[in-house]
Amino acid sequence: MPSISEKGRRMPASPIRKLVPYAEAAKKRGVEVIHLNIGQPDIKTPKIALDAVKNNTIEVLAYSMTEGSEAYRNKIAVYYAKNDIHVSADDIIVTTGGSEALSFAMGTLMDKDDEIIIPEPFYANYNGFATAMGINVVPIESKLENNFALPPIANFEKLITPKTKAVLICNPGNPTGYLYSQEEIKQLAELVKKHDLFLIADEVYREFTYDGRQHYSILQEKELEEYAIIVDSVSKRYSMCGARIGCLVSKNQNVIKTALKFAQARLSPPTLAQIASEAALDTPQSYFDDVIEEYMSRRDILVSELQKLDGVKVAVPQGAFYCVVELPIKDADEFAQWMLEKFEMEGSTVMVAPAAGFYATPGLGENQIRIAYVLEKEKLIKAVFLLGEALKQYLSQ
Amino acid sequence: MPSISEKGRRMPASPIRKLVPYAEAAKKRGVEVIHLNIGQPDIKTPKIALDAVKNNTIEVLAYSMTEGSEAYRNKIAVYYAKNDIHVSADDIIVTTGGSEALSFAMGTLMDKDDEIIIPEPFYANYNGFATAMGINVVPIESKLENNFALPPIANFEKLITPKTKAVLICNPGNPTGYLYSQEEIKQLAELVKKHDLFLIADEVYREFTYDGRQHYSILQEKELEEYAIIVDSVSKRYSMCGARIGCLVSKNQNVIKTALKFAQARLSPPTLAQIASEAALDTPQSYFDDVIEEYMSRRDILVSELQKLDGVKVAVPQGAFYCVVELPIKDADEFAQWMLEKFEMEGSTVMVAPAAGFYATPGLGENQIRIAYVLEKEKLIKAVFLLGEALKQYLSQ
Ligand SMILES: Cc1ncc(COP(=O)(O)O)c(C=O)c1O
Ligand SMILES: Cc1ncc(COP(=O)(O)O)c(C=O)c1O
Repeated sequence: MPSISEKGRRMPASPIRKLVPYAEAAKKRGVEVIHLNIGQPDIKTPKIALDAVKNNTIEVLAYSMTEGSEAYRNKIAVYYAKNDIHVSADDIIVTTGGSEALSFAMGTLMDKDDEIIIPEPFYANYNGFATAMGINVVPIESKLENNFALPPIANFEKLITPKTKAVLICNPGNPTGYLYSQEEIKQLAELVKKHDLFLIADEVYREFTYDGRQHYSILQEKELEEYAIIVDSVSKRYSMCGARIGCLVSKNQNVIKTALKFAQARLSPPTLAQIASEAALDTPQSYFDDVIEEYMSRRDILVSELQKLDGVKVAVPQGAFYCVVELPIKDADEFAQWMLEKFEMEGSTVMVAPAAGFYATPGLGENQIRIAYVLEKEKLIKAVFLLGEALKQYLSQ
Repeated sequence: MPSISEKGRRMPASPIRKLVPYAEAAKKRGVEVIHLNIGQPDIKTPKIALDAVKNNTIEVLAYSMTEGSEAYRNKIAVYYAKNDIHVSADDIIVTTGGSEALSFAMGTLMDKDDEIIIPEPFYANYNGFATAMGINVVPIESKLENNFALPPIANFEKLITPKTKAVLICNPGNPTGYLYSQEEIKQLAELVKKHDLFLIADEVYREFTYDGRQHYSILQEKELEEYAIIVDSVSKRYSMCGARIGCLVSKNQNVIKTALKFAQARLSPPTLAQIASEAALDTPQSYFDDVIEEYMSRRDILVSELQKLDGVKVAVPQGAFYCVVELPIKDADEFAQWMLEKFEMEGSTVMVAPAAGFYATPGLGENQIRIAYVLEKEKLIKAVFLLGEALKQYLSQ
């Protein structure tokens, strides 16, 4: 029997994949499992986007342009201009989710064994795309103690080798919830210019910033035009993860021309979803105001409830809808499984994502979990209560 | 300024990309360009599929399961059973087009510098996916003289090295229109079993077979279960290329488990398009009967019109909706450009795909073009007439 690829064997499984059967078994036993582990928002998709799909008059559901429909790209450019990011339709390639934009960016910038520096903890699938491409992720540790702020630039410089091609940040961060300051982006800009590296920013959570803070994009840095690549997505912005529409944005025409060749091979992004995404750009500001208010108050409740628990440390998120939490235990993987297998209170338990899966350095984050606050407040309160009770029982074993 | 990847530089551009500006210029001059170069069918998408999308009651457009919705996979399994292909929902991963299935298959089976043998001429994007993955395509020539039948197995054996991991066929073929016989599939089965290789069959044109011929799938070969991977797609079957839904099918659970890791990294295939694709499975047989009758009569007209032209050779297609044609010229690339730039008759000209882009061996196919017969008969007749007149003018220069 022929054997699969070495690369295929090394492809990482999702950090929560191991826990799924335990969650299913719990549900079979009749236990309610409250999911703190999922990045799928419960917020409704804007009606204007769903209606556009329902009202389409397509007779032949044809391929769109490889780079995405022109009308849609023009409207995306207007959206960016409102966010002080000045690009034209030609600087944009519409992709099948931010996921595909990440994959195109890596293919465009890097060959096998090239290195990409990423502050950890980071979105676990960066590892998957890098492994698929044969690229080495070089992690740089950011710390819960200072809310996962940008590591010192000197630490980046220590990691740069002739193989280093790019730095990748997620802003605001999944799983950290950290929002980089303008000052931090400027430091990164200096770094990549000095060492002739690309800077990729995953800005899929751009809208989700709290306490009146402003997102500062790498494409607002004027001198970064040749170095900067934005990865973007409609998934979280309009709670339409299932659309599978994102984009790659760069003012570097060499990058766009090359990424377009990767795009041509897969023909085009989904047509129906582009209709929804184009319409979604007309979502009124009030929708975002409401959503952000909702997430902010969920965050406030989550953080204040967590802070009541003994020995628990929280990095207070300033953006996105995730939060990394340190628990007074050794092995969050084991604890997460234990909660699903052994723990229940009044018929309920909790599923969390062990944070080790978001670190590339072995041993880091083993006592941390990631919580996604995409649940209603009452559910969040109940979940944190259960987490606290579970911790007590687990520690007194 | 940082530079893009070596791989990015090597990524092939689409075979007709160079011609696009000439076609646009011709249109600007007011010339009608009849497109024989496009694989986008003009056939209407089944209403049942479009209606399912219009009638959806989704409020949150969420990610589907990574492997595709269970209901949809179950229905795909029923579709396969009707085609004498016996698989379960667990043997199927729903992908973003057949394109993504190809990419997952290559990643799952092959590492950098591994080799995949593909009969040429072949679907040009196989090159794109292979280049993106750092895999070497090893072409094996099939010939217009015998309608692009399977090359002798001895020729395959000469090309097998320790790096060879798989054989990829397209059945029926784009661009050849060739339909492999049961006997040919059995020969390939023996070959891959003997040499412990995977056999990937791109069967996206399965339904499109003519003259009463039956498609024989690699998964109808019982002893091939551990070796066989099918790449499939709704794009052409239901004329819904813009859906971006396909699938990868294998009875080899190692292959499925590994491909699933690649799938997890990109989260899920498009949700709206899965709704359309699931509904499309209820398309009545009469739809296919009509479509196949239509394509068959287009093929008949195309072939008989082409055969009237001096010095033109046609490989008569038995499936799909493409046809490779040899012209009495040296350089089809130059001729195709000349038709767009210099030729017109009564305000019209023709755009064809030069066939060299479908060969991996330099120098092959330079006097051939690919014609897609996805146009109405009158248009086809006019296009072939124009082609003949263009040839006369071009040859008498
Ligand atoms: C940080 C980050 N980047 C990218 C993605 C990919 O999302 P999509 O492919 O749905 O756009 C996600 C999804 O959770 C994410 O959290
Ligand atoms: C032979 C072949 N395979 C695969 C594809 C990919 O199609 P899709 O990604 O739309 O399923 C095509 C499209 O033209 C094709 O001709």
